Amino acid sequence: MNAPSFVNRQWFYVKRPEGRVGPEHYELRESQLSAALAHNEVIVQAHYFSVDPYMRIQQHQRDTYDVPHPLDIVQQGGVVGRVVASASERFAEGDWVYGYNGWQLYAKCHANELTKLDPAQAPVTTALGVLGMPGRTAWFGLMEAGRPRPGDTLVVSGAAGAVGSLVAQFGKRAGCKVVGIAGGADKCRFLTERLGLDAAVDYKAFADVEGLAAEIQRVSGGVDVYFDNVGGRVTDAVIPLIKRRARIVICGAISQYDGGLDTPDLAPRFLQHMLFQRATIQGILARDFLLRMPEMVAQVAPWVKNGEIVFEETLVDGFEQLPAALGSLFEGRNLGKLLVRA
Amino acid sequence: MNAPSFVNRQWFYVKRPEGRVGPEHYELRESQLSAALAHNEVIVQAHYFSVDPYMRIQQHQRDTYDVPHPLDIVQQGGVVGRVVASASERFAEGDWVYGYNGWQLYAKCHANELTKLDPAQAPVTTALGVLGMPGRTAWFGLMEAGRPRPGDTLVVSGAAGAVGSLVAQFGKRAGCKVVGIAGGADKCRFLTERLGLDAAVDYKAFADVEGLAAEIQRVSGGVDVYFDNVGGRVTDAVIPLIKRRARIVICGAISQYDGGLDTPDLAPRFLQHMLFQRATIQGILARDFLLRMPEMVAQVAPWVKNGEIVFEETLVDGFEQLPAALGSLFEGRNLGKLLVRA
Repeated sequence: MNAPSFVNRQWFYVKRPEGRVGPEHYELRESQLSAALAHNEVIVQAHYFSVDPYMRIQQHQRDTYDVPHPLDIVQQGGVVGRVVASASERFAEGDWVYGYNGWQLYAKCHANELTKLDPAQAPVTTALGVLGMPGRTAWFGLMEAGRPRPGDTLVVSGAAGAVGSLVAQFGKRAGCKVVGIAGGADKCRFLTERLGLDAAVDYKAFADVEGLAAEIQRVSGGVDVYFDNVGGRVTDAVIPLIKRRARIVICGAISQYDGGLDTPDLAPRFLQHMLFQRATIQGILARDFLLRMPEMVAQVAPWVKNGEIVFEETLVDGFEQLPAALGSLFEGRNLGKLLVRA
Repeated sequence: MNAPSFVNRQWFYVKRPEGRVGPEHYELRESQLSAALAHNEVIVQAHYFSVDPYMRIQQHQRDTYDVPHPLDIVQQGGVVGRVVASASERFAEGDWVYGYNGWQLYAKCHANELTKLDPAQAPVTTALGVLGMPGRTAWFGLMEAGRPRPGDTLVVSGAAGAVGSLVAQFGKRAGCKVVGIAGGADKCRFLTERLGLDAAVDYKAFADVEGLAAEIQRVSGGVDVYFDNVGGRVTDAVIPLIKRRARIVICGAISQYDGGLDTPDLAPRFLQHMLFQRATIQGILARDFLLRMPEMVAQVAPWVKNGEIVFEETLVDGFEQLPAALGSLFEGRNLGKLLVRA
């Protein structure tokens, strides 16, 4: 007797982008996934796909923090879904789970690869955002590398994004004056009105770095902690504004991901500011804090449950939208965490 | 009755340089220094003048780590000299002392401003070098910010200079593989033959950054600690070679001091490497460790006494040579610590 099977759809990563990534670098393939399960195997149907800037880093030719994402395999990524078949005593049909299952509608997983989610504790999509990788990055990046102190001025670039919007709020809770930098008036309103930041700067409103720097200086009065998600011209503007013993956290450089990691562009030298201010720069990655996830969740989950923290999501509907959604990250159109719903 | 007086000669800093500093930015003035002393006053006759790259930093227009050096005062700087008149019970005529007395043959000082030197313990000039500010910078910069571990690969730029030559040797003592970068074959021979480094790279032998980087990679195999005294193209070459959790110590950027601090030039962006390798950059200044000087001396003075450490000096004769000697630092003609002898 044949086991039933699932009609699977998968986005294969088939071509390395040179500039902006998009649908032309992916192929949508259909196949049958047999429902036959070995002991401890589980089939998960994806409901929400995480779309993250790091995916584009892994598509660069040069070694980055990983070897490049292999071609001709399913695009890797975090997924929230439900169990539709289970040969594990730990998972029942209907359970919500998180897994690194990639861009496919169905995935056959070992039970050990999955984390069970409790929808009564928090919306399941938070496993891809505030209680997942972006939350972990924001929490440990700010607390461990940024070392905020009450009264410090924290400047966050990409402040309306998945990580930045959390960093900004964690900074407020740590007693900092927080200035967010984002692109466009809507995002800036979100920062001051929804997140309660002390000030927001729309970098798109400034044609040159000097004007942008003057505005950041005006509203911040100088920078004790700079949490950087974007790099590029915004960072060029912020670094000369650092104060004595400033901490600069390099969490991302999204402005450079369209190809600038393979062929870096030119920017003014700035290491002298590190010397003059005896400042530090530290690069951080979410994976470094993976095993400390429970620490972050213990701190942040109660804030989520009590509605004390804003975790905005931008939802794109349709599995077929995944490659375009990834490309849209680099246009800065998302507010908070970008998700694709199957 | 008039007290006798000393014929003093003083180098006044009178004009801010835009590019290379030289005699045209100074004026030599002669005056009488009365030998009349208040209680606890001491007159010191200078014998050795310290000539240091930081002096040029303080001549930049922009604020650096200090307000700019004021015009129309005697050039500040460290001096080793002898007491020629004393109204302090702590100092007798003939005593060797260190003081921050500036570029003048005689200085009237409060006893509290002077440190007595013991010529039996170490050559008195070491108070301006290995047992003075450069030694302190090298020791704490490497040990506290660089955090070398046995087996690490340490790359030092400006490795034949006052600080770099000490960092390189401290790195060997810490169990590192040490690669020195310097300008010219003579300096490179000094690094491998006198200091016993594992390899030396002559940056002047490479026309482009790529060639220089390839050679540093070849001899180092990648960089765990980079102690940077020079900045500029050498640093452009080293940073992409850092390994996981590398520590970059910014101690100086002498290649930029001819005017590049006021008008930074352009260089390839590199912060992505900090991210990929979860590396740190830390700026350090000698002054941050001033009160920990005894710790450094306790470690290093026995090595000096036992001849276990090379502390090369380049001696320029003649008080009138001081401004030209300062300018010569930026041509890289000195080996080890540059001193002017009165």
